[in-house]
Amino acid sequence: MNKELAQALTQLLGDRFTTAEYERNQHGKDESTLRPMPPDAVCFPLSTEEVAEIVRLCYQHHMPIIPFGAGSSLEGHVFAPHGGVSIDLSRMDQIVRVSADDLDCTVQAGVTRQQLDKHLRPLGLFFPVDPGADATFGGMASTRASGTNAVHYGTMSENILMLKVVLPNGEIINTGTRARKSSAGYDLTHLFVGAEGTLGVITEVTLRLQGVPEAISVAVVGFSAFEAAVQAVTEVRQIGVPVARIEFLDEVMVKAVNQFSGLSLVEQPTLFLEFHGSNTAVADNAQQVGAVMHAYGGSDFQWAVNQEERTALWTARHNAYFASLAFRPGSRALTTDVCVPISRLAECIAETRRDVDASSLVAPIVGHVGDGNFHMLMLVDPDRPDDYAAAEKLNERLVRRALAMGGTITGEHGVGMGKMKYMAAQHGEGALAVMRAIKQALDPENLMNPGKMIPAELGK
Amino acid sequence: MNKELAQALTQLLGDRFTTAEYERNQHGKDESTLRPMPPDAVCFPLSTEEVAEIVRLCYQHHMPIIPFGAGSSLEGHVFAPHGGVSIDLSRMDQIVRVSADDLDCTVQAGVTRQQLDKHLRPLGLFFPVDPGADATFGGMASTRASGTNAVHYGTMSENILMLKVVLPNGEIINTGTRARKSSAGYDLTHLFVGAEGTLGVITEVTLRLQGVPEAISVAVVGFSAFEAAVQAVTEVRQIGVPVARIEFLDEVMVKAVNQFSGLSLVEQPTLFLEFHGSNTAVADNAQQVGAVMHAYGGSDFQWAVNQEERTALWTARHNAYFASLAFRPGSRALTTDVCVPISRLAECIAETRRDVDASSLVAPIVGHVGDGNFHMLMLVDPDRPDDYAAAEKLNERLVRRALAMGGTITGEHGVGMGKMKYMAAQHGEGALAVMRAIKQALDPENLMNPGKMIPAELGK
Repeated sequence: MNKELAQALTQLLGDRFTTAEYERNQHGKDESTLRPMPPDAVCFPLSTEEVAEIVRLCYQHHMPIIPFGAGSSLEGHVFAPHGGVSIDLSRMDQIVRVSADDLDCTVQAGVTRQQLDKHLRPLGLFFPVDPGADATFGGMASTRASGTNAVHYGTMSENILMLKVVLPNGEIINTGTRARKSSAGYDLTHLFVGAEGTLGVITEVTLRLQGVPEAISVAVVGFSAFEAAVQAVTEVRQIGVPVARIEFLDEVMVKAVNQFSGLSLVEQPTLFLEFHGSNTAVADNAQQVGAVMHAYGGSDFQWAVNQEERTALWTARHNAYFASLAFRPGSRALTTDVCVPISRLAECIAETRRDVDASSLVAPIVGHVGDGNFHMLMLVDPDRPDDYAAAEKLNERLVRRALAMGGTITGEHGVGMGKMKYMAAQHGEGALAVMRAIKQALDPENLMNPGKMIPAELGK
Repeated sequence: MNKELAQALTQLLGDRFTTAEYERNQHGKDESTLRPMPPDAVCFPLSTEEVAEIVRLCYQHHMPIIPFGAGSSLEGHVFAPHGGVSIDLSRMDQIVRVSADDLDCTVQAGVTRQQLDKHLRPLGLFFPVDPGADATFGGMASTRASGTNAVHYGTMSENILMLKVVLPNGEIINTGTRARKSSAGYDLTHLFVGAEGTLGVITEVTLRLQGVPEAISVAVVGFSAFEAAVQAVTEVRQIGVPVARIEFLDEVMVKAVNQFSGLSLVEQPTLFLEFHGSNTAVADNAQQVGAVMHAYGGSDFQWAVNQEERTALWTARHNAYFASLAFRPGSRALTTDVCVPISRLAECIAETRRDVDASSLVAPIVGHVGDGNFHMLMLVDPDRPDDYAAAEKLNERLVRRALAMGGTITGEHGVGMGKMKYMAAQHGEGALAVMRAIKQALDPENLMNPGKMIPAELGK
């Protein structure tokens, strides 16, 4: 670590700048199975202005800058393959403003989704995007996260009005306004959403909110085969009945969830459904969806009647990742994340299951089926390199399959380091060159989260 | 016009390349009151490959390139202030594919919204974005258009899955996949949506579709004052009852629409509402919304019962622009387009109406009030320069007011030449510098629709 830079950062931040090994290690790993890569130092800014000053100093000293939120990413987004300074935004945790009239709010990048939810519920409001982890909004924006509500409410892409961003040159910009739509110039908000910190550091996020509906009802429905479940979902989407959540669990995942969360669901391909609206509308929607499910051989709806039962069910769903790990104690999980057009989803899952069956791996599946997105959690034994190799091979085959079906290599987890090798296959060299040109234009020294997302050009 | 280039384009396109004065004039004007600026020549390509070849040739000869759709823009987007070649995409009018299972379709850039609607309705599908004009999808994508359904279904920004684009260097790229969400790299789709042809030429658009709902019902409700109408809409949004359309017309606009479209609405501030869903849900939603309207002094709902009445009502709304022109025969209209947070909407309209009252102008108002977006159609006498000056002054005051309220200079019409002077005020120099850097990176010679959207730097 450059001594002059360390001194300048200490002067700026005091003990909120550190090179302690413990902190460096904490900031060089995430929830993935990738080998950690710690940064040279960690900063804990309290304001956008401090972030701007850190970025300016790092740029002066040609030091890589890695934004850090909750460390819950799954593709090595927060690693420091080229060393550098990790900017941990978790202490920027202020909810700046909430407007019930405008159904929007502004939060600092370090606010987590559960923190905001606690703040909003008493106001009769909620924010719908809910990745599995209790991630920060800076991180959720940077990976274009989604979750179980995306089928109805959209992903982070649809739910951000504007961002405050510190650019590589240390300038602070707003990417938009609080207006709910705008045709004024290039869409900088969507450029920084999903940019994984490679173009700047997001320090504030202005979010669209929703009013808590009058009625929420949750149902569970089982199928003898997953193909029927997917077909039923396809038809529900076509007839346009609003469903807030449509989550799929295969029989292996149901078993894992039963064990981990103490549920007693029938171990078969299963959908969790949630309906939002007025009492009348919810009852009517549920009745219509139930009829479709029946037509495809689904069981009768099992209703989660009260708030406690609903919370238990969704908490169990959110803990699917940890339930999978506990399913094979001592294992780690390689998580896949493709998303395909829904007409290809059943076929994609079927072929993938055949791959799994032909391997030695256990791999429960959960899916945001309404969006065509699903995750396979491939459980590997940390002591068996063969497991990793088998899982990597499965993932590679799955990614190629999704691309051949018109899908994407990542529906919501992002590229990070793990998916970089597939970027050219998805986008083609022409589109990748556009991304490189944008990166070069905004970050000419390649100091913003380098070694992520955009693969280096051959020969460079 | 460079002779060598003209020869090359003639060789490529035959009589689909022209320098005829009539075509040049047709392609140098739009629906605005801005003074036309014809291009040097017009091309009518039939394929993406032809567009790519035209762009390559123009770039070689340093000739500006101006994409052209229906010519229905309102801010001079298709003008040729620096001369150049207009690429008219209207003959690329193929509907490439429709998937009912995936609720998506791909159309060439020259397909118009009414053309697609005719194609989709028999399939039980529709595309919700509906600007006033029968615009092309290339144009709607390029201006980030919206319309009356945006409050529920979103704008072009939320309804495009991917684009095919010809880059300034003549390369053809896809900006995404058919997956409904993706976290793979920079969001090139949203970069080109709203870029107004300044970064490339959109040749194909892949759209999200909707299933036609079981029930559609349309109601009209009148208020004695517009503030109450806006407040009622704010509350409806808060309680989260889904309304597909919420359109506002002030009493002047109602009068204009009555005269032009032969309706007999009471001449007072009025909302047009539309509900989509099952029969039960629509009845329930309408009942809830009706109760809110009543609480704010709204009249009883007048229902447009059958399809004919509904069509008559919405056609009248879509023709508001022409109704306004006919309201003062021989006049032209300067159209405003600000969008503000809905909590400031009533105040914004009130102050604007005071401005109008203090002027000599007649200026009916329509608004997509659920989004905070409204249009004032300031009627000017083409023979009275004072009218133009007064209208320009009103617009300037309105734009500044919207910005001060946290809004945007344009909700859906785009920047073009007309709003360029306000870009710095909205975005600040830092964000504008980012836009310039992107433009420079992708179009280093500034040949893609030059002189639009991004103001030149001072001193350049």
